[in-house]
Amino acid sequence: MSLLVVGSVAFDAVETPFGKCDKMLGGSASHFSISASFFCPVSIVGVVGGDFSDAEQCVFDEHGIGTSDLEKIPDGKTFRWQGRYDYDLNVAHTLDTQLNVFADFKPKLSEASKKSRLLFLGNIQPDLQREVREQMPDAELVALDTMNLWIEHTRDSLLRTIRGVDVVIINDAEARQLTGIPNLIKAAHEILSWGPRALIVKRGEYGAALFTPENYFAIPAYPLESVFDPTGAGDTFAGGFMGYLSSQQTIDEAAMRRAMIFGSVMASFNVEEFGTNRVRRLTHDEINDRFRAFKRMTYFEEIPFERAVQASK
Amino acid sequence: MSLLVVGSVAFDAVETPFGKCDKMLGGSASHFSISASFFCPVSIVGVVGGDFSDAEQCVFDEHGIGTSDLEKIPDGKTFRWQGRYDYDLNVAHTLDTQLNVFADFKPKLSEASKKSRLLFLGNIQPDLQREVREQMPDAELVALDTMNLWIEHTRDSLLRTIRGVDVVIINDAEARQLTGIPNLIKAAHEILSWGPRALIVKRGEYGAALFTPENYFAIPAYPLESVFDPTGAGDTFAGGFMGYLSSQQTIDEAAMRRAMIFGSVMASFNVEEFGTNRVRRLTHDEINDRFRAFKRMTYFEEIPFERAVQASK
Repeated sequence: MSLLVVGSVAFDAVETPFGKCDKMLGGSASHFSISASFFCPVSIVGVVGGDFSDAEQCVFDEHGIGTSDLEKIPDGKTFRWQGRYDYDLNVAHTLDTQLNVFADFKPKLSEASKKSRLLFLGNIQPDLQREVREQMPDAELVALDTMNLWIEHTRDSLLRTIRGVDVVIINDAEARQLTGIPNLIKAAHEILSWGPRALIVKRGEYGAALFTPENYFAIPAYPLESVFDPTGAGDTFAGGFMGYLSSQQTIDEAAMRRAMIFGSVMASFNVEEFGTNRVRRLTHDEINDRFRAFKRMTYFEEIPFERAVQASK
Repeated sequence: MSLLVVGSVAFDAVETPFGKCDKMLGGSASHFSISASFFCPVSIVGVVGGDFSDAEQCVFDEHGIGTSDLEKIPDGKTFRWQGRYDYDLNVAHTLDTQLNVFADFKPKLSEASKKSRLLFLGNIQPDLQREVREQMPDAELVALDTMNLWIEHTRDSLLRTIRGVDVVIINDAEARQLTGIPNLIKAAHEILSWGPRALIVKRGEYGAALFTPENYFAIPAYPLESVFDPTGAGDTFAGGFMGYLSSQQTIDEAAMRRAMIFGSVMASFNVEEFGTNRVRRLTHDEINDRFRAFKRMTYFEEIPFERAVQASK
């Protein structure tokens, strides 16, 4: 019942209208694994430099996150990202990116990791994603995230990678860019026609949608009066989604729907504080309370309209 | 169990990337009443000119829509609106507006109309909306629509009108503009603090949300592979919402939630063809089928995460 993630482990510097943090643990694999750790055993494939200290390692250890495939290059520096958000918190302005040890990242999977039941390919170069995926032919479910950079510059490789995964998790702009189709519903069916059995479209404050060849499932976002720092929300969603699926014996559409809710719950906590701060100290009761809130805010009675009843009143 | 709407009856000329129509029945009261007529008896308060012919009257008659308060000015011309949509069908470009008889519109309510159980104040000048509302002190539920024009130029009057209604139905940009608050959840609570017991925020392709002082309810839009003409979608939503409520003996939050679905169902049909063409020939089976589709596309099992169960596997 184990889950593997390949992606970045980084130091983020983030400035928002509400505060500033010069250095905190970030990166797709960090956000993903901390979120997933509330649901299942999870391990990271990634790379860090000599500046990755005991304090950061401790965060992973406290959550039981496996780091035996997190390569350490003592004379290198960890990936750094610096960004700023204005009042429109949907848009991240990148101020600086230093790939450092991540520039030459070659994912190395131990034999134990290769036996993981589920795999999440975080947002890295699609050739690398495919290499990892091909080392795990027996994985029960493989999901992938990507971004505009790879859609623009390595489209052919990305399409090959997408053909080999089960679930694609992207935002609506990426779905349109990837297919060149403005209508999201048509774009979604185009992506599913390439092979994946499910597509998840993240819509930020508008929630998320799950497309399968037969069905459509859509949920709102948890209503937040203030968003403090949206960095990592997408990976935290993916961590909740994949972590929950990993905890389930049967991975069918019903499980995926519940996983969408758990993913949204985790993302809603993530944006309440800087970096991974809020998610790190979550309890299962807090997670389940917000899961139940999703039921309350989407529930309606299924009573079709009866003209006869109405007319007789 | 009757419903009254005050609003515009117009001739629309619409151009979209998919076609063109030089003259068709439009206006808020037309879209609203045709939609509502599938659920309850509905009457219009409005004004038309001598160019309003039997063909248009026939549409109202066929749907049993009361037009005794639809004033006819034989030597005047009916309100005309001409608009264009590009591929971004969310944005209407107004090419021409001729208010004609609508410029001097003074709503006149018969004694019978004043006894209507529910009232919808379509998007007209807020002083007029308030005059109508004050003539119906015993209405069980009064809802209001408005637009950026009135928020900008007659804000004080609009606020006075909002204080006297039960439900405000606007889009998210209008909610932000009305309150000056960028966060939608905060903006919604601000509007509710003025008096209404419910706020509905329309989000176009992202669905709609219902805010009450205690609760939050949000639904996605029906997934459409193509939108042909979005004109009147908001009024068609309001017609389905108010029409359904009008058919119900008890108007509580549970009824409002179902009414949100019926409103969304009606709006989803409206955009499939020009003007009122698609809605006019709807059947109750088609409406109920799409209502049930909403249940399917929002349903998930409420099974909180059980750490113990997971760990024991």
